[in-house]
Amino acid sequence: MSACAFDHPFLSGLLGDDESARYFSAEADIAAMVAFEVALAEAEADLGVIPGDAARSIAIAAGKFKPDLQALRTETARDGVSATELVRQLRSATGEPNGRFVHFGATSQDAIDTSLSLRLVPVLDLLSARLGRLVAALDDMEKRHGGKTVMAHTRMQAAIAVPAARKIASWRDPLVRHRQRLDGVKDAIAVVTFGGAAGTLDKLGGNAQAVTESLARRLKLKAPERPRHSERDGVVAVASTLAGITGSLGKFGSDVTLAAQNEVGEIILATGGGSSAMAHKVNPVGAEILVTLARFNATLVSGMHQSMVHENERSGAAWTLEWMLLPQIAIAAGAATRTALDLIPAIGFSTK
Amino acid sequence: MSACAFDHPFLSGLLGDDESARYFSAEADIAAMVAFEVALAEAEADLGVIPGDAARSIAIAAGKFKPDLQALRTETARDGVSATELVRQLRSATGEPNGRFVHFGATSQDAIDTSLSLRLVPVLDLLSARLGRLVAALDDMEKRHGGKTVMAHTRMQAAIAVPAARKIASWRDPLVRHRQRLDGVKDAIAVVTFGGAAGTLDKLGGNAQAVTESLARRLKLKAPERPRHSERDGVVAVASTLAGITGSLGKFGSDVTLAAQNEVGEIILATGGGSSAMAHKVNPVGAEILVTLARFNATLVSGMHQSMVHENERSGAAWTLEWMLLPQIAIAAGAATRTALDLIPAIGFSTK
Amino acid sequence: MSACAFDHPFLSGLLGDDESARYFSAEADIAAMVAFEVALAEAEADLGVIPGDAARSIAIAAGKFKPDLQALRTETARDGVSATELVRQLRSATGEPNGRFVHFGATSQDAIDTSLSLRLVPVLDLLSARLGRLVAALDDMEKRHGGKTVMAHTRMQAAIAVPAARKIASWRDPLVRHRQRLDGVKDAIAVVTFGGAAGTLDKLGGNAQAVTESLARRLKLKAPERPRHSERDGVVAVASTLAGITGSLGKFGSDVTLAAQNEVGEIILATGGGSSAMAHKVNPVGAEILVTLARFNATLVSGMHQSMVHENERSGAAWTLEWMLLPQIAIAAGAATRTALDLIPAIGFSTK
Amino acid sequence: MSACAFDHPFLSGLLGDDESARYFSAEADIAAMVAFEVALAEAEADLGVIPGDAARSIAIAAGKFKPDLQALRTETARDGVSATELVRQLRSATGEPNGRFVHFGATSQDAIDTSLSLRLVPVLDLLSARLGRLVAALDDMEKRHGGKTVMAHTRMQAAIAVPAARKIASWRDPLVRHRQRLDGVKDAIAVVTFGGAAGTLDKLGGNAQAVTESLARRLKLKAPERPRHSERDGVVAVASTLAGITGSLGKFGSDVTLAAQNEVGEIILATGGGSSAMAHKVNPVGAEILVTLARFNATLVSGMHQSMVHENERSGAAWTLEWMLLPQIAIAAGAATRTALDLIPAIGFSTK
Repeated sequence: MSACAFDHPFLSGLLGDDESARYFSAEADIAAMVAFEVALAEAEADLGVIPGDAARSIAIAAGKFKPDLQALRTETARDGVSATELVRQLRSATGEPNGRFVHFGATSQDAIDTSLSLRLVPVLDLLSARLGRLVAALDDMEKRHGGKTVMAHTRMQAAIAVPAARKIASWRDPLVRHRQRLDGVKDAIAVVTFGGAAGTLDKLGGNAQAVTESLARRLKLKAPERPRHSERDGVVAVASTLAGITGSLGKFGSDVTLAAQNEVGEIILATGGGSSAMAHKVNPVGAEILVTLARFNATLVSGMHQSMVHENERSGAAWTLEWMLLPQIAIAAGAATRTALDLIPAIGFSTK
Repeated sequence: MSACAFDHPFLSGLLGDDESARYFSAEADIAAMVAFEVALAEAEADLGVIPGDAARSIAIAAGKFKPDLQALRTETARDGVSATELVRQLRSATGEPNGRFVHFGATSQDAIDTSLSLRLVPVLDLLSARLGRLVAALDDMEKRHGGKTVMAHTRMQAAIAVPAARKIASWRDPLVRHRQRLDGVKDAIAVVTFGGAAGTLDKLGGNAQAVTESLARRLKLKAPERPRHSERDGVVAVASTLAGITGSLGKFGSDVTLAAQNEVGEIILATGGGSSAMAHKVNPVGAEILVTLARFNATLVSGMHQSMVHENERSGAAWTLEWMLLPQIAIAAGAATRTALDLIPAIGFSTK
Repeated sequence: MSACAFDHPFLSGLLGDDESARYFSAEADIAAMVAFEVALAEAEADLGVIPGDAARSIAIAAGKFKPDLQALRTETARDGVSATELVRQLRSATGEPNGRFVHFGATSQDAIDTSLSLRLVPVLDLLSARLGRLVAALDDMEKRHGGKTVMAHTRMQAAIAVPAARKIASWRDPLVRHRQRLDGVKDAIAVVTFGGAAGTLDKLGGNAQAVTESLARRLKLKAPERPRHSERDGVVAVASTLAGITGSLGKFGSDVTLAAQNEVGEIILATGGGSSAMAHKVNPVGAEILVTLARFNATLVSGMHQSMVHENERSGAAWTLEWMLLPQIAIAAGAATRTALDLIPAIGFSTK
Repeated sequence: MSACAFDHPFLSGLLGDDESARYFSAEADIAAMVAFEVALAEAEADLGVIPGDAARSIAIAAGKFKPDLQALRTETARDGVSATELVRQLRSATGEPNGRFVHFGATSQDAIDTSLSLRLVPVLDLLSARLGRLVAALDDMEKRHGGKTVMAHTRMQAAIAVPAARKIASWRDPLVRHRQRLDGVKDAIAVVTFGGAAGTLDKLGGNAQAVTESLARRLKLKAPERPRHSERDGVVAVASTLAGITGSLGKFGSDVTLAAQNEVGEIILATGGGSSAMAHKVNPVGAEILVTLARFNATLVSGMHQSMVHENERSGAAWTLEWMLLPQIAIAAGAATRTALDLIPAIGFSTK
């Protein structure tokens, strides 16, 4: 199947990004959920909530665990979440008497949201690194071309001549700021989710906070003061920041398509797309795709905001909506940074 | 990869729909583009635009054609469209002297948009048939349960008692209207796209309209008065209607979740989702998913409207945005109709 | 106050449209709700549901009715709807013993949604007439300029020369289709809303359908088979069509800004905006505003789709959202058609 | 006119917020633009760019300035911006020989965006103060009701009993985090915009940075390293944060409507809306409006992200879109905080 450009056999080369997409594969999600269950068992064993043998058995079983994907698909269709069946499989893989201690005191959302955090952190790090490379590439462009004179345009009309450095800075400076924003929003989601059925960790008794902290430490996440099951401001802040990144890169792409128009000719692209009807054309495909990805994320981010209206302690409707949107928003940000990194070296400024 | 719930190894059982999704596979797209090229060659041969031998060779080659997907991915990333490379492969498969006549007078958008039309028509037919089945299922529900008394609620407060028939009609009647709308929008997109480089079919000379009509006839589409490359009102009308369908089904799903609350108990669900933390629960997963899909399409349809702002004769930026959105909107409508068809038989009205 | 460009002391000249906006004034809304109440009383008197004297008294009082806007504002803030207080004021103006028969058997939504239908019909007629004028103006443009040669551009690159007629047709043809769509969606909303508390007209007994039909006839609307309180597909179809209109006009505006670039110079605008910093500029303000309005409606239409998820028999949350969006969507369509009508005569094609 | 709920004679009591809306009045905007022009003249006089007499004359004229709103409306419709005509009026009010020094070296966007910053800062401060009051009110609610037992609900089904404190914390904690976010985004927009025609302050020569810094100091804003005309990430970050606030309050409102259902009865509202058809009802109007405002802002924020794709040095199309959206987003956040402050004292938890 290939409903979606990011997974598509031939569109993914244009619109996808393997490096960010791999964090949103079923494999990566399952691995992170399993890591959550192992760390939870170890944290609970440490505090005497479950037997030490159980934690060791669970870790060993997890190390060799092969999920039954078909059953996972079938049961997810019934339960609305994957974790219920995944826990069943992991319990079965562990065997009794220790299997029953898998997922002790936890709820599906604990495993699923912690898995998301474990994977969003490296995605944000990847994007931050790429923003750093983009800033460096634009610094370099400024050094090489900044002194050339280009025409500024306001309201789609020629305004006055400016140094190319002015234009390049307007592409670069927002990326510097977005990189700072990424640090802020990473804090908001680099937390463990552990609340049990309804956020009260009622099965943990007095050990609730200690287990949470040990769990967080093992997963290199932070322990929030309280579990945030129904509080979606963190993931929405992430999505907004990612859409901001694609937005600024879309502005860059739009500028490139405008400056590369034959009639304008201030930017010459070293590489571009061919046409099935017109052999003479060099299409600014990468620059256009930056616009596409900007408008795509500007569209999807709205649904993330809608998903904040989360009924009670857990909304199946709203939470599932996030699953349909956030991975695509993140991969679009990945694709935009990748495309921009490819585009910059192809940009030449005409010497007129 | 599985960036997208519809293609996802385990989420697709919950959120996907195989029957509609298969029209959006790469295979289906390629097959439809190839069908376009064959029909075009035949139409052109009929009118003496290309040699009859060429059309026959192309048809034979197309019958055995195996696309090189890796090359298609690589070249799509460069060209921004798949058709340029697909045509190259089909020409190569046909061999000279006839290969050069593949795609004669056409542009990539002709193949790609006609392929979309060829696939959207059966998708709309599928959805129309499912709406018909949903209407019948709700008619049946009305027959069985319509005489029971339920509480009407306005502004989330109990209002007055009404017959269940009233509620059931409010779920059914919009689906009857949506089905009528589907007929209207199908007309808008069941057209061939054939315009050449910039909509003037300049290489066809006086044969332009005749070839267009013959091509349309062969593909069981209509020939529009003029090619519509940059006129996206038709696909946006389709997307809006699909979002309308998911919207009305989302309202149905929302009502079911409200009536199935333990404290309300007017609807009893025969089947539902289990919980990893609370064994006693029967979660109204299907009903929630209808809300999710409604909000998903309500989100994505905005981007389709944004894509109407299409620069000049063909906008790479705006057109590509459609590719990222429309298949998902259509499959979401497929998933919503499928989910509703599964949900209705599980609904019982309490006899209080 | 002037939170909104359409009502703004100085932005409304740029972005507003008096002709369509007046249907969304408080005065127009109140007048239409009062017309509903009068027609309802007359229909009910005709069928003997209320005394003939009551209907006459109500009509007389309505003829002289001056709403207390301050009380309306205060009570709307409390009740969430205006009709409760408006009915109270109209009852008081009618006086007893007849005042009690105002709004007999009706609910607030009956008055409010019928008022909307009464005002949307002329708005759609206005837009249809303007689309007709736009089509005529573009026909005229084709006659005067269609034979000139312009450069077609695909993917922001010069493609091949085409007659201006080709470009003009791509602006005009979607408007022809939108006009046809307006007819279809007008049918969907040119209906009376009359359902009573929860859609069952329980206080009307056997007279329910007859009163509905008489009411509809008096208001020159149609009587639907069943009241549609919570079925929002009709208004969403209207909003989608309006956004389609602004979308196609946005594409036209975008093309004008591109062709009017100094470096392209294929379109020369006779009039345009001045700049506070650059006296030499003639900015394509009208064309830009068409893009703005397209993207504005593409944004807002998403919320209309979200509002379809309407809880039970009446959702305060979802219905109110429509009130915040639909008037703006309609006025934006008004402003876009007005702006396009102003823009077309200013467009000249260069003779190169 | 009353296209928009916030300005509407009777809807504004329900949906508006006078305290935040006044910063978006035409008067406030004009006053802030005039303050910009005065501060600019003074900064330029200090550095010898314009005569000291000119600055003094401009300040005196500004003190008595009465804008011609009709001319402002007419010319804004032509120019696309208000500042060109406003500067003309202020020059005329100053008279020659000093009038010509009004707006020296500046462009319309400098006045308009600085005006926005001058007004957004107090709006964000207002919202931050209100979030502080909301947090305090929820702390108080926790003290009074936190020990009561309520039913947690997940996926719209009863889950387990939890202390009300758990639920209250899930409403409060996101507001604490949003307040911190407001500080961050305020930094991003509390900057002066001063760039001249195309961001290079070409008329200021070597004084550019010094004038910018003096101007910023006088307006209590910061001087950015470079003017940010076409870099819209700051305003989009503001809009995203405001939509986050309404989103979290929408979740709170949704929870209240669910808990206040007659069949659930865990929350009893002391005040609510009346019904024109059903005298017995107490509708949770305020809670519903929180949902409405959340979905409204979730919708509009998408358009802000779209507006980031800003052509070249200044996009009339994209910038104008912000004017249509951002004030409404801000006032919706104002209305949501106001509504929540009113709602909290009306919430009682049943003692069952």
